[in-house]
Amino acid sequence: MNGSKRIMDRALEEARAAAARGEVPVGAVIVLDGEVIAQAGNRTREFNDVTAHAEILAIREASAKLGSERLIDADLYVTLEPCAMCAAAISFARIRRLYYGAEDEKGGGVDHGGRFYAQPTCHHSPEVYSGIAEQEAASILKDFFANRR
Amino acid sequence: MNGSKRIMDRALEEARAAAARGEVPVGAVIVLDGEVIAQAGNRTREFNDVTAHAEILAIREASAKLGSERLIDADLYVTLEPCAMCAAAISFARIRRLYYGAEDEKGGGVDHGGRFYAQPTCHHSPEVYSGIAEQEAASILKDFFANRR
Repeated sequence: MNGSKRIMDRALEEARAAAARGEVPVGAVIVLDGEVIAQAGNRTREFNDVTAHAEILAIREASAKLGSERLIDADLYVTLEPCAMCAAAISFARIRRLYYGAEDEKGGGVDHGGRFYAQPTCHHSPEVYSGIAEQEAASILKDFFANRR
Repeated sequence: MNGSKRIMDRALEEARAAAARGEVPVGAVIVLDGEVIAQAGNRTREFNDVTAHAEILAIREASAKLGSERLIDADLYVTLEPCAMCAAAISFARIRRLYYGAEDEKGGGVDHGGRFYAQPTCHHSPEVYSGIAEQEAASILKDFFANRR
């Protein structure tokens, strides 16, 4: 659990860096065999790309690095509950464990909405651990939206 | 409807080209103001990228072309029912109408599984028209998987 918090701290740094760029502050880190192999923050505005969520960018970076579309035995850390798009991509990439920070009642796809991993159309479900550095992740988002108003 | 079939024919061509590359044969086309602004076939194997579904590649191409992450008033044609990942990306991109060919009972996310557009976590739903060139789309997939065995 201390190890999980330490890695989530890197995801939180990515979230803060995203906020500084004017992006919705979400960060993600992928770990394989105890080593960080990819990390990213949300860049949807910068890239004009709705798919450029932190999780998708991290998965694409990790796959490019490993030369494999499947990230067997890799774990993904993300500051916010993944949306339906990212939940499905995490499944397709065969991520072993998903650690997330704050819940996303409005847009989450893991423990809200279509709950992708509970569907018969989901063919690989990661182990899911939620609430890692939850308050810190939530306050970064809250501050970001408060400042935008 | 004739116009829809004509555009779906281009998506079917993309699907056949994907099959020829050894990719699961799915093709997508995006139309804005009567003009094709993006078209793509599945390239997950070529790119080592689980997110490189036809719909995602077409959305990214259209967004790059328009310089906008939102594809307001654009319509997306795809030969197979989108998965949860693509269904969500289509929603995020604010696609107006989704036309799809064959249903995907095992992996679809529009009319199967989490049915993203019916969820309270979905904040934009395209109009959905299914069954466009359904048999042709299904037979391209069936032939592909039969040949792989």
